[in-house]
Amino acid sequence: MTELADRIKIIAFDVFGTVVDWHGSVKKEVEAMNLGVDADAFALAWRAGYQPAMREVMDRGEWIILDVLHRRILDRVLSEFGLDSMAEAERAHLNRVWHRLDPWPDSVEGLTRLKSKFMISTLSNGNIGLLADMAKRAGLPWDVILCAETFNKYKPHPDTYRGVAATFDTDPGEVMLAAAHHSDLEAARGCGLETADIERPWEYGTREAKSTAPWDANSLHCRNIVDLAAQLGC
Amino acid sequence: MTELADRIKIIAFDVFGTVVDWHGSVKKEVEAMNLGVDADAFALAWRAGYQPAMREVMDRGEWIILDVLHRRILDRVLSEFGLDSMAEAERAHLNRVWHRLDPWPDSVEGLTRLKSKFMISTLSNGNIGLLADMAKRAGLPWDVILCAETFNKYKPHPDTYRGVAATFDTDPGEVMLAAAHHSDLEAARGCGLETADIERPWEYGTREAKSTAPWDANSLHCRNIVDLAAQLGC
Repeated sequence: MTELADRIKIIAFDVFGTVVDWHGSVKKEVEAMNLGVDADAFALAWRAGYQPAMREVMDRGEWIILDVLHRRILDRVLSEFGLDSMAEAERAHLNRVWHRLDPWPDSVEGLTRLKSKFMISTLSNGNIGLLADMAKRAGLPWDVILCAETFNKYKPHPDTYRGVAATFDTDPGEVMLAAAHHSDLEAARGCGLETADIERPWEYGTREAKSTAPWDANSLHCRNIVDLAAQLGC
Repeated sequence: MTELADRIKIIAFDVFGTVVDWHGSVKKEVEAMNLGVDADAFALAWRAGYQPAMREVMDRGEWIILDVLHRRILDRVLSEFGLDSMAEAERAHLNRVWHRLDPWPDSVEGLTRLKSKFMISTLSNGNIGLLADMAKRAGLPWDVILCAETFNKYKPHPDTYRGVAATFDTDPGEVMLAAAHHSDLEAARGCGLETADIERPWEYGTREAKSTAPWDANSLHCRNIVDLAAQLGC
């Protein structure tokens, strides 16, 4: 791995699912609200609206930040779960649960170690304020927050992956994307980035594990972010 | 100051001159290159091209990052100082001196203290890569890097000051700009931000001190960033 570790300068991280546990965090807050719903299913339903909502924005050629999309999906999911009566202040607070997601147990240590050698960045579809609030609360030590809002495009648009390299006036081959999602990694590879696949078997909750089988196409396959740091000599 | 310290959530910092010593850092690198020029005057000439170059970009309604403007000005200044023979690689390296500026002695301590209570951000005309490189080298502990490149406008355009508040979906009165330049502070006040004036008598070098007289219009007047932290109870 020495050659790879010497070549790359910037590691950009997918965030939801890769660095933070969105399912567990949303489920925990929904449970605490005592709404009488299946909090596990509620979290999954909210997240299920995410990809279609972003695709619709991109297809229309418009630009809307994720906080706004999350709120649109939330209003629909509340209705589906028979919670139309939830008050505005409560909806607004719940919508910001995405600013309050907890990191996976290895994330802070892994990022801190990687930061000693590499520029570490987000590359998330979350908006800047969401990611800054999350980082401050969770202690995620980003050098810089780059995201869909920086480039006015959602991943997997190539402008996002190439945008990280352009921000640092560097070659895409000097940038690595670390992510728990193959579609994200595949799009990054298509733009010339190195890729690290991070295992996150419990991303969608503990009822069913997500496959953690390695894909050969990635430069690295890592159990978690501490393992990524170890593989890169940090 | 308790009422003010309780109200504001985000402190955005001007960077060149306020947080880092651009004159001293540029002068030091130019001196080390043994070019046979007055390094103090060279630094001043380079910086003097900055405001007109940004104004021209804004007047044309175009968008160009500061690294590119710095390079255009550098090529002209090199010519003025009889250094047309400087090679491309040396020019490219010298241009990135703005990524390698040293902080004022109080900056890291002051920012670290403020970070314990507030969201701390840049609000600089520097580009994202420049500010991230600078922060990593100098140990500036920003929560988030916001700048002209984030908003595709140079200060003092109102979109930059209002953009900080919009990024955090908050009221401009919950944002404070800290800066060593009255024009910057005045524009921020015009957008409803609180303002802190930071004394930086040696911003333009040690040959002549810059006035540090307080302007009553600012919410706070501070000797330096540690003093700002103390005045805000950090």
